[in-house]
Amino acid sequence: LREVLDAAALVFYERGYESASIQDIAESLGMLKGSLYYYIESKEDLLFHILEDAHDQARENIARAKAVEGDALQRIRAFVTAHLVFNASNIIRMGIAFHDLRSLSEDRRRLIIEARDEYDEFLRKLIRDGQKEGIICPDIDPRLAGFATFGMTNWIYQWYQPGGKTAAKSIANEFADIIVAGLACDRATHVPGHRRRFAALPGEAER
Amino acid sequence: LREVLDAAALVFYERGYESASIQDIAESLGMLKGSLYYYIESKEDLLFHILEDAHDQARENIARAKAVEGDALQRIRAFVTAHLVFNASNIIRMGIAFHDLRSLSEDRRRLIIEARDEYDEFLRKLIRDGQKEGIICPDIDPRLAGFATFGMTNWIYQWYQPGGKTAAKSIANEFADIIVAGLACDRATHVPGHRRRFAALPGEAER
Repeated sequence: LREVLDAAALVFYERGYESASIQDIAESLGMLKGSLYYYIESKEDLLFHILEDAHDQARENIARAKAVEGDALQRIRAFVTAHLVFNASNIIRMGIAFHDLRSLSEDRRRLIIEARDEYDEFLRKLIRDGQKEGIICPDIDPRLAGFATFGMTNWIYQWYQPGGKTAAKSIANEFADIIVAGLACDRATHVPGHRRRFAALPGEAER
Repeated sequence: LREVLDAAALVFYERGYESASIQDIAESLGMLKGSLYYYIESKEDLLFHILEDAHDQARENIARAKAVEGDALQRIRAFVTAHLVFNASNIIRMGIAFHDLRSLSEDRRRLIIEARDEYDEFLRKLIRDGQKEGIICPDIDPRLAGFATFGMTNWIYQWYQPGGKTAAKSIANEFADIIVAGLACDRATHVPGHRRRFAALPGEAER
């Protein structure tokens, strides 16, 4: 099944899920269409299993961050790094997850969204933990900071070239540096609104 | 033409560019298919003009940042804020730009990519300016920091709900706070590698 899912993912990625046919996938596997139906009942089955599988594997990034002995910023660094390296190793499946989720039936879409929400919530919880520890700025909205972090790291599916000049690990470290520095704050010197100090235009300091 | 482009953008966004037909767009306008051909010659013409138009308008964000009297971080704040508010007001067109660029003919795709590169380069230049001014960490790779910033801000097309509980301006300020804090550094106290201080796992401090 693994081989079938990988082949289907590549076909969906290259032609778009809506345009791709079961016939295309069978051909890319050198298989008869009938043999493919031994594994699945519909094109949507393939899409669902690809996404389910990706989310199952992504849970290891949570386990890795949990295993870090350190403060919340250290766990955030570990999570961001693991998440980025995971994305870089799964560009095709990530592309499908971001473009074609809407093509799933409602029930299945709900299952994938639940898995994704659980994953996203793990990061938001780390941000709240860091605020309690007094090392992440209390002015930060954990929900928005979570979206910011996932945006930065998920977006690589648009530009990252596997095997290109910049290794995934270097990108992961650079992004983790930006996120850690972007969230960090010292309880001892915190003054509400201090991060808005560079606001330049009239009205820009408003929330 | 504006009305036609807006209607086409909505149809592409909802059905996917590949699945949508000229007939669908004509129907959404209450027009005959033949009348639509008065404006354009092909479905791809519509896609191209939608993307061209979006990039033309996005240039105002550059003008806005250039008009800021201040240092590079202030101009970065202004640019990030303007870019995010622009994206939030153009969720449909941004979604099409991110999903369907590849459906353009090669010549036209090149034109759009050139416009996009020019836009991206403006931010990279601001980051390099800030490094020269001694207010952005010299350890930062301007190319990767640019991708990080655009990832964070472009990603909102995946989750932002126009008219939802969080105003675009609030998101823009929150993200600008994270980016400014994430890039900032003081030349007087800079020590190479200091941002990697939270690295937790063996090997994680490597570049």
